[in-house]
Parts: sequence; C-alpha cells; structure tokens
Amino acid sequence: MCHALTGDAHAAGHHGDPGKAGWWDNLIGPGRPLDTDRYFVICANVLGGCQGTTGPTSIDPSTGKPYGLRFPLLGVGDLVDTHRALVAHLGVNRLLGAIGGSLGGMQVLQWALDHPGELAGAMVVAASARLSAQNIAFSAVARESIMRDPDFAGGDYYGGDRPDRGLMLARMIAHITYLSEASMREKFGRRIQDAIEPRYGFDVDFEVESYLEYQGRSFLKRFDANTYLYLARVMDYFDPFGGDAAELAARLARVDTRFLVLSFDSDWRFSTGHARDIVRTLSAGRVPVTFREISAPHGHDSFLMPVPEYHKTVTGFLDRLASEAG
Amino acid sequence: MCHALTGDAHAAGHHGDPGKAGWWDNLIGPGRPLDTDRYFVICANVLGGCQGTTGPTSIDPSTGKPYGLRFPLLGVGDLVDTHRALVAHLGVNRLLGAIGGSLGGMQVLQWALDHPGELAGAMVVAASARLSAQNIAFSAVARESIMRDPDFAGGDYYGGDRPDRGLMLARMIAHITYLSEASMREKFGRRIQDAIEPRYGFDVDFEVESYLEYQGRSFLKRFDANTYLYLARVMDYFDPFGGDAAELAARLARVDTRFLVLSFDSDWRFSTGHARDIVRTLSAGRVPVTFREISAPHGHDSFLMPVPEYHKTVTGFLDRLASEAG
Repeated sequence: MCHALTGDAHAAGHHGDPGKAGWWDNLIGPGRPLDTDRYFVICANVLGGCQGTTGPTSIDPSTGKPYGLRFPLLGVGDLVDTHRALVAHLGVNRLLGAIGGSLGGMQVLQWALDHPGELAGAMVVAASARLSAQNIAFSAVARESIMRDPDFAGGDYYGGDRPDRGLMLARMIAHITYLSEASMREKFGRRIQDAIEPRYGFDVDFEVESYLEYQGRSFLKRFDANTYLYLARVMDYFDPFGGDAAELAARLARVDTRFLVLSFDSDWRFSTGHARDIVRTLSAGRVPVTFREISAPHGHDSFLMPVPEYHKTVTGFLDRLASEAG
Repeated sequence: MCHALTGDAHAAGHHGDPGKAGWWDNLIGPGRPLDTDRYFVICANVLGGCQGTTGPTSIDPSTGKPYGLRFPLLGVGDLVDTHRALVAHLGVNRLLGAIGGSLGGMQVLQWALDHPGELAGAMVVAASARLSAQNIAFSAVARESIMRDPDFAGGDYYGGDRPDRGLMLARMIAHITYLSEASMREKFGRRIQDAIEPRYGFDVDFEVESYLEYQGRSFLKRFDANTYLYLARVMDYFDPFGGDAAELAARLARVDTRFLVLSFDSDWRFSTGHARDIVRTLSAGRVPVTFREISAPHGHDSFLMPVPEYHKTVTGFLDRLASEAG
C-alpha cells in the first residue's frame, strides 16, 4: 500500500487509542477489503517524507545539519524503489497487489510500468498520470505561499521559527480542493461559528472558515514545509506516459499487471477525466484494466471513506487476483 | 453599470492607447450591446474601492491618515446608494437598466430589490445571491494570506512596506477560480516556460505558473490589500434573500424591474446553480425574469468576453426594455 502526499505508514489499527486509528483503517482489517485474515498488508513511509523514511528533515551526514532544499528532487520511481527495497528485504518476490490513492496511486502506476513481474494487480485510486494546468496552478500557489514566508529562510528554518503561516495556507488551499462543493455545502452551508448572527468583520465568522483554519493549524503539528514542497513537486512533474510513443508502447507491452482504476464522480482535483486518460493509455497498450467511476459525495477525499460500492469493487478485484494466483 | 471586485470606472474606450481599453470595452460602444448611439452609459468606481470613490486608502479626516481597517464594513446596499446618489446628481429619475457581472451583478440585484421604480431592467451576470461554503472558503484563504503577511501591520501599512506577498497570493488563488479547467488546459497545458525540458526544481517551470505569478505581480500595481479585504468580505456576507420569508415576499411584491439572469456553463466560481437560485426566488415572488445559461469556455471570466450568444441576449433584452419604455 502506498500512501498519499500527507499520509504515513500508520494506515490501520491504533496504538492504544481507538480514536487515533490509521488513515485507511476502514479499508484494512479482518473482513474488510484488504482482509488481514487473508492478506499480509505492507505500508511504509514514503521517501522524501517527514514521518520516518529519509527526507528534507533528515540530517545530511556531510554537514551534520538537515538537508532542507539540498535534498534531491525525487521522481515517483524513487519512491517506488524504496518500497521495493523493503519488499525485497522482507523476502517477498511477487506481491498480490499494490494499492494507493492520489500520490499513492501514482506510485502504484509507476511500479507496475517500471517493474514487470513484481505486481499481479495494481489498484490506482483517485489518481492522475499527468497533472492538469489547474492542478499545477494550485500547487504553484501553495509553493509560493511556503517559499515566500519570511520564516522559510531558503529551507533552513530548522531550529528557528518555521514557515507556519505559509504551510498553513498551503494546507488550507489544498483542503478546499480535496472536498466537493456539495460536501462543503452539506457540512457547513453558510452557518456562523458560535453565534446566531454574523459579526460582520474580518475575523473568522463562518463555520467553514473556522474548519479550514483548524485543519491548517493542526497540520502544522505533523508536517514539514520542505517535505510539502518536495512531495507536491514530485506530483507536478509526474508524467509516466510522456515522451516517445514507440518507447511507451514497448514498455506497456512488457507490463504483466492487471489494473483496477477508480475515480469518484465528485472528485474535482483528480476528476474521472484523469482516470479515463490512464485507462485509455493502458488499454491502447493492451494492458488489462478494469475502470469504475464510483458515485460518492466527498470529493477527492472519497478515497479515504467507507463508500460501499468502492469497497465492494476493491474486494472483488482482490478476490479475482487471489483466485488467479491460486 | 456596476463593476466587479477588482474593476473600476474605466469600463470602455481608452485615454490615447487603444491597447489599454476599458475592461468591458467589447460590450460598450456604437453597434455593441450597450450601444452608445442609443444609450447613455454610466459607470462609477465602487464605494470602498481604491480607484477614486472613498475607501480604506482614503484619508480619514479625523486622524489625517488613511482609514485602513477603521473604514466601516459595507454592505452591497451601500455600494448601490453611492451609484444612486450619482444618478440623482445627473438628474436621472429612472434608468433603462443596470448591468453587472459578479460583484457587479450583486449590486444590480440589490438595487432592484431595494428601490422599486428606479430600474426598468436588471441584468445580473455570473453572479450569486449567496456565496457557497466553497466560495467563502476560497475567500477565507485569500483573507488569511493578506492579514498574516507580516507587512500587513493591522492594515496600517501605508507609507511603509505593503503586504505584497499576501495580496499577490490572494490574487493568484482568485485567478484560478476565474478560469475553467478546460480553458487553463487549452491555454497552458503542461508546457514548460522558455525551455523544452523541465528544469526539475522549485522555481517557476510550467507556463501556467509563470502566468499566475505575472497576474499576481501586475495586480499589485493597481490594487490595495485593505480594499481587497473589504470588497471580498462584502461578497461573503451578501444574502439579499436571507431572513424572514414573509418579509422577502412583501419586498418582492414591490419589485417592478424586469430581470435578465445569465450564467456561463464553464463558470465554477458562480456556477449556473447560483443563477438558478436567484431565478427560483424571483419567480416565486412573481418578479419577471428571463434566465439563460450561456455556453462559453472561459469560466467565470466569460462575462468579460465577447461571447456572441451572450452579447445577442443582452442586446435583445435592452431592445425589449427600450421598446417597452417607448
């Protein structure tokens, strides 16, 4: 399992507090789609992240200081290679499947394309093979927000004030793109925070404002600004189907992975159009691919939600992989 | 004619340089929908703006310093009242029509609701009677961006460094919401700026990034951060159909203005749903209203573009008003 931009290795279960279960807990466990009575599930922190695997917050042994912006700009293939090293270390030759949402789905796609023979199945959920101009535009604003924060200090802010303002804004912007307009309307409407009448001023007044600010602020406790820059930029540049067409065709001819590509009808960050582009390219290369657009109201975040049709589709796909594998 | 958030009184014509024509030049002039051979067109800077009419940049006579955040938070009705004062000063009793896009359309709507007898027609284009949670969320991020800029200084930045970083980011975020995803794809795709190969780094690399940065930067030359806060907040709180239902019904019964409500199918800032809400409420109150959703690819900015069906619709509506007026 590959996690998304701000995820981590803690995908399921809890460490004593059931209220702090992993981010994909509804998908993983006995009787759930990734049924731990049947499957062995592996999830590692991503390379370049800030939760364990080496990243910009790690100490550069040559200077004794955190890498900051001296950390190399990675590609999705580098993220995949660390997962592969872990899998090899565990003595596994071939995985039944890889699954991931958003940046996680990008890793799954890249893995299947680059390493025939390693994955029987690839489940690419709410992902894209190529960010749109609008996606890149939102990413650019988030990056500007972080890098123009006076506390950013060229990325060398460790030990001093952190660029909290910039990172918080970046998170707030991203968060809007993770929810659908309908789910925001449903959740907040135009309700006023802690009051009946509007206060008519520039402070937080509407509930949606206070929610966004809370989301931005709590993000600061668990994330790092340089890491955000790196992982967002990895997504901007991701383009596994780009380049020479004949070369791509030859690459696709070697792929021996069965794909499940899922999108959600309310996701406007990586809309169904992104999924269809993946499906079209894989199909043109004669790669076996099943595509489903799932109806769910939660926008991009739908991939984290226990949507019955979605879970049933993942369960069915894994069943099929398992029966094919004997 | 009422202008939008960042517009001004210079709607048409030019002052020597034909390349610097007004923002609605394609709509106004001989033979155009607002045919200056037939109609007398009035457009004033909005109250609270920074292009002439009193606003946060104006000198507070009681202190001799700019108002900044001591300027009162206005409602759309206040903006309308200054237009009405101008119209009265010009000796006009009844206008053939008022037209405006976005915040301009909000002013037109409020005017017709509050002042029966003054407008024969009201053309409400790409507007909303009530911002959605998502609209308010984008507005909140822009406001945070400005107010958390260390140079904001509680709004008293005049004479010192201005909160340029914050205002630029606010403009970049807003600009994304003014364009459709399709028009961004068409305009920029994933093209790299001034190069064939990506540079793989954190500097501006994609064309859409450089476009957004340019838009943000040039906005600083003509706009003021406090003004942005005020006019955006006016939109957040706008809710002319809110409150008591019986009172609203009585108000609508007094309206004697014929409405034209227009939306654009690619506008995701004020989508057709916003227009339909206006139309539904007006119709329920037996106010005569014509509604058209125009097909145009430019997103919210479509209201500024010479879209033939749009211009034809405005022309026809004005013809009808003029013939009814005799």
